[in-house]
Formats: sequence, structure tokens, C-alpha cells
Amino acid sequence: MGLCIDVVSGGELYTAIRAGVRADKIYFHGNNKLYEEIKYAAENNIGTFVIDNEYEYEILSKLSDSNSKMRVLLRVNPGIEAHTHEYIQTTKDDSKFGMSVFSKDTMEFIKKIVEDDNFDFAGIHCHIGSQVFEKDSFFKEADEMIDYAKKIEDKLNIVIKEINLGGGFGVYYTSEDNPFDLGEFLREYIKYIEAKLESSKLNPEIISIEPGRSLVNSSGSTLYTIGAIKKTSAGLPYVFVDGGMTDNPRPSLYQAKYDAAVANKMNSESKDNYRVAGKCCESGDILIKDVALSDPKPGDLLIIPSTGAYSYSMSSNYNRIERPAVVTVKDGKSKVIVKRESYEDLVRNDEL
Amino acid sequence: MGLCIDVVSGGELYTAIRAGVRADKIYFHGNNKLYEEIKYAAENNIGTFVIDNEYEYEILSKLSDSNSKMRVLLRVNPGIEAHTHEYIQTTKDDSKFGMSVFSKDTMEFIKKIVEDDNFDFAGIHCHIGSQVFEKDSFFKEADEMIDYAKKIEDKLNIVIKEINLGGGFGVYYTSEDNPFDLGEFLREYIKYIEAKLESSKLNPEIISIEPGRSLVNSSGSTLYTIGAIKKTSAGLPYVFVDGGMTDNPRPSLYQAKYDAAVANKMNSESKDNYRVAGKCCESGDILIKDVALSDPKPGDLLIIPSTGAYSYSMSSNYNRIERPAVVTVKDGKSKVIVKRESYEDLVRNDEL
Repeated sequence: MGLCIDVVSGGELYTAIRAGVRADKIYFHGNNKLYEEIKYAAENNIGTFVIDNEYEYEILSKLSDSNSKMRVLLRVNPGIEAHTHEYIQTTKDDSKFGMSVFSKDTMEFIKKIVEDDNFDFAGIHCHIGSQVFEKDSFFKEADEMIDYAKKIEDKLNIVIKEINLGGGFGVYYTSEDNPFDLGEFLREYIKYIEAKLESSKLNPEIISIEPGRSLVNSSGSTLYTIGAIKKTSAGLPYVFVDGGMTDNPRPSLYQAKYDAAVANKMNSESKDNYRVAGKCCESGDILIKDVALSDPKPGDLLIIPSTGAYSYSMSSNYNRIERPAVVTVKDGKSKVIVKRESYEDLVRNDEL
Repeated sequence: MGLCIDVVSGGELYTAIRAGVRADKIYFHGNNKLYEEIKYAAENNIGTFVIDNEYEYEILSKLSDSNSKMRVLLRVNPGIEAHTHEYIQTTKDDSKFGMSVFSKDTMEFIKKIVEDDNFDFAGIHCHIGSQVFEKDSFFKEADEMIDYAKKIEDKLNIVIKEINLGGGFGVYYTSEDNPFDLGEFLREYIKYIEAKLESSKLNPEIISIEPGRSLVNSSGSTLYTIGAIKKTSAGLPYVFVDGGMTDNPRPSLYQAKYDAAVANKMNSESKDNYRVAGKCCESGDILIKDVALSDPKPGDLLIIPSTGAYSYSMSSNYNRIERPAVVTVKDGKSKVIVKRESYEDLVRNDEL
């Protein structure tokens, strides 16, 4: 199967197709795919549709036919509590994603899909959460998923072709994070999975993972220009930057922590502690509560590393702040891949 | 002075000017105004520049001259702890906004502005927080601000022309909120302020307030289309909608609570409890944790009222979800004032 692309909305699907991704390499995920999105995916013959719930199945069933036979996985919920922020835990029993492996209805539903001529039921998918640092969570997940795949094979007398174990491999943001070495872990994980498959007498064509953040997060950094430096009557002095929760909402949303440095003073050793705040009109627009910086001054560049995932993609225009440009850098050469927003962009859809 | 408009960024200033707001009616706020924004404001001869810190003053001083005499207020921090969410408390001693009334440096700084021929120092501004329900916080604020204005008059032998008390008047989101009647409060507030001014022997031309959210929040509602209804093995059944934290990040950001109803079943009395979730690919995308709804079904419309402020303005394209249209409704007639985003809008600035 090789490298595939996950999308979770019509907009992501549109972007992937426009960027030249082969439709058969696309997996369409998400807990609430809209009718128009499902239709759009079907018309574009995407490779795999990951059904989240019965409503999606009903829609898709009407749009599919026995000639095209849409390849589908079912998102299931193995009920594993991954050690991570509440918001990004995705397989607790009350998660909005998937259908519980503990529910009889789920097996009944799979039977319905299997017996539907319009579908090629390929297997099951799950995702236990994000920023997971405990290898055990993944081992436990593999056990549960393989056990459930076995149960499906036995009950419905079919062959499970794919078990998609999702992602969630924790990445480094600050020295508080201790991610495991992904390459080393995956070798260990493969061995573990192979042994478990053998003992379960299962032989799926594909075991897939979704390592998104762990592949791209450390490749991205955000560069800010420092504005005012402000001492307050309590707390650390502030370093104000020309962005904030608009380009990176993770600190205010998840209390996510980041490191930073004065990019044009990387070799300086003297450091004092500062609080880094953005320019939004609210007190919560703090990017970093406490970080040691080398003599920051107005006009200096502040770099916050590890913003390659879930920062720009979550960005807003709160307070009508324009989104920054995205620039790739390789071998000393740079290229703008997303243009900076203009004031004109901010009012483009206004009809007044 | 009448009705004026506050902006906190170049983008908001651009929007206000483009919408036909008279420049002399504009107040420019914010903790980190950029050089380009300050220049843009000066070139457009905006009415009042609210200086947050010395760095802004330095920039503005170079861009102003004694002919145009920029009218300025200083944002000060009276150190009042308003009873509200930590993120939107804005005058704690370690707030990023303004300069402390308890610091000698602040008075020195005001002296510098007063003596600078390029400026017309009009007075002081503060804002104690958002969603404040305690009248006492505002009375205390008025006391502190008038006392400080008096102190400035006495120390620098000038007349304070404006005291801007900001806003933060709490509004209704759910039955847990008990906002005071704004009209009644303001009559009380004016009396209180007048008495305090008289006893302080102050006579400013203008006492201003910034009632933004309290004016517009209840005028706005968000309409969603219901997709799947999903029962999980624990917790309430989910109602999935075709939006979520992308169009309203307040629930995930501030644990803000909202009410909801099935818009096409408003007269139905039977109700069960549901959890309302959006379509973003994360478990935290829950709009309402627990709300009684009348028999929601796929295709029904779900209305969430009280989204007139700080929802659309904070919206993102997370997961490449398009922002909805904004529609005004009056006397049974509707008009689109902001067009729905298209897939094309999502990739408009992509250079690939």
C-alpha cells in the first residue's frame, strides 16, 4: 500500500486532490462526514472510506454501487485510556469517534456492511489519542484490535484485510516531553504485532499507522518579530510578538508548552526568563509562560520550534490578524509555499 | 463624542475604514501594535490612539508631529481582580495590558507624553476583564480610575479630558449566567461616577465605556444542520453538527457553556439529553456537554443562541473546514453579509 493520505473533511479532500494526491491513496476519516462530502468522495473514487457511524453508511450505500464497490474500514473504539490531554484522547467509552468493540450492535453493523454488495469491507481502524508517550498504550491497542479482527473473522467468516492502528505517537515540544525513538519503537511494534497475529492466526494484507504529527512537527518552526518588552508589577517581563493564539492556539487550548529562542542571538549565553505573549486582545493570549531568552529586544526574531503540526492548520483571524506566510527552507534556499494573508483577504467574502 | 469604534489591529482598522467608519471615531487599542499598524493609523488620522507601552510611544512619537497632535489615552492597569475566567481577566498585576497605576514609572511616562508636543494627552483607559457579573468590580474600577486621574491632574497640573472604563459587562449564554440589566446598571453607574467625580473635584469631558459583547452577543445565533446521532457505550448520545470548534472555539477554549434547541421543533415538549459535537478530528470538539433537545434527527436544524460575539470572529479553518455564511435577519427578510467560504478560498494563498 505504501504511503497514503488521510483527510477528514471535504476541504482536506479538495486540497489533497488539487495537490496531485492519487485518489486511490486517500483515506476519508471523520466523525461527521456531510452528505456533500460523502458524495464528493464517492465521485472522486477515493481509495478507502472510513465509516464512523451508521448514518454515514446509509448515505454512502445510496451513492455506491456494486460495480465500484467502495473500499471501507470501520472506525472502532477499543476503549483504551491513553495518557494524554483530555481533549485529544479519542477512544474513551464516551468518545465521539467510532463504534465500541464492546457493543453487540457494532458486530451487527459490520455484518450489514459485509453483506452489502456495494462495499468492499476491508477491516477496522482506530486511533487512541494524540501525544501518547506510553508504548504500552500502543501494545494494548494492537492486542485489542487484533482480538477484535479475529472475532470478526470468526463470527462473519470473512478475511480482515487491513487493521489500521492510527497514530498518536508523542513528539517533542519542550524538555518535559520524552518521546520514544519512532524508528526503534516501530521495529519493536512490528515484532509485537507479528507475534500477536501469528498466535491469533490472522494474516491481514495491511497493518497501517498514521504517524502524521510525528513526521512533520519538528520540521516546522514559527518566526516572530519581537515588539515591546514590558515589565509588569508582578510576574515575568513580557516579550510581545507579532502573532499569538491566532497562528498557534495550542497553548491557550491545551495548555501546550513550547520552547523559544532569540533567533539572531542563538550563540549568546546570558539568559533571563520571560513570558511570551501575542497581540490578541485577551489576557489568555500567552504563547509561553516562562522561557529563558538571550537579551530580547524590539526587532529581534523569536523562534518557536516544533510548530510543524497543529498550529498553522488551526490558525484563525481573531482580531482580524492576518495569517503569516509559510516558507520552506532547504540547503540555504527558501520558498514561499503559502502567501501571507493581506488585509484584502480578511474582507474578501464581506458583502457590505 | 457619541458612538465610537474600537479596533485592536491593522486588520480591524482596515475593516472599519472600509466599512465607512469615520477615522476620528476610531480608538486604536492592543498590547502590541506593530510599526506598520501604527503608521497606518497615523496616516489615516484616527481619532484616538490608546498607548499600551513605551515602545509604542517611541514609534508613534517619530510618526507624529506638532501640527497633527495625535490624541492619546494611556492604558493603565488598576489591579482589579474581576470574577471571570483566567484568560479574560485583563487587569491583574501580571496582565500583559497597560501600565500599572501602582508604578512610579507610569506617572513618569505620562509626564513624558504630556510634555511631548506631538501629542494631545486626553486621559486614561482600562478594561478589567470579560464576562464580569459583579457590579462591585465596576464600581471599584471607577473609584480607582478616578483616583488615578485626580493624581495625574494634581501631579502634572493638567486636565484629564477622558476616562475610558472599558467594558466586560457579563452576558447571558445559559441559565447559569445572571447578567444585570445593562440599562439599569448604567443609570446606577453614571450616578456613582458623577458623585465620585464631584467629591474628587474632577470634570472630564468624556466618560467612555466599551459595551461590545453586551450589545451584540444576543443578536447572533449559529444554525447547524444535524448529521449523525450516535449512542456510545458510556455518556450521553451525541448529536453531530456540520461545524464545531472551527466556528465557535469558546467551549474548548474557555469551557464556555451554551444552550441549544432543534430549530424546526421549537414547540415540541418532549426532551432528552444529548451532547453536541462538531466535525473536527479531535475529541475536544464538543460544543455542548449536556443539553435537552426535542427529538433531534439527521437533517434537523440545531440553533445555538448567543453567538453574536467572539465566535465567528475567532473562527478557524482547522481540518480545512470552511467558515459558514453570516446572514442578517430583520422583519422576516434575510441578507447574506458574509459569504460562505468555498474550497477555493481554503487554498487561495497556496503557491504549490
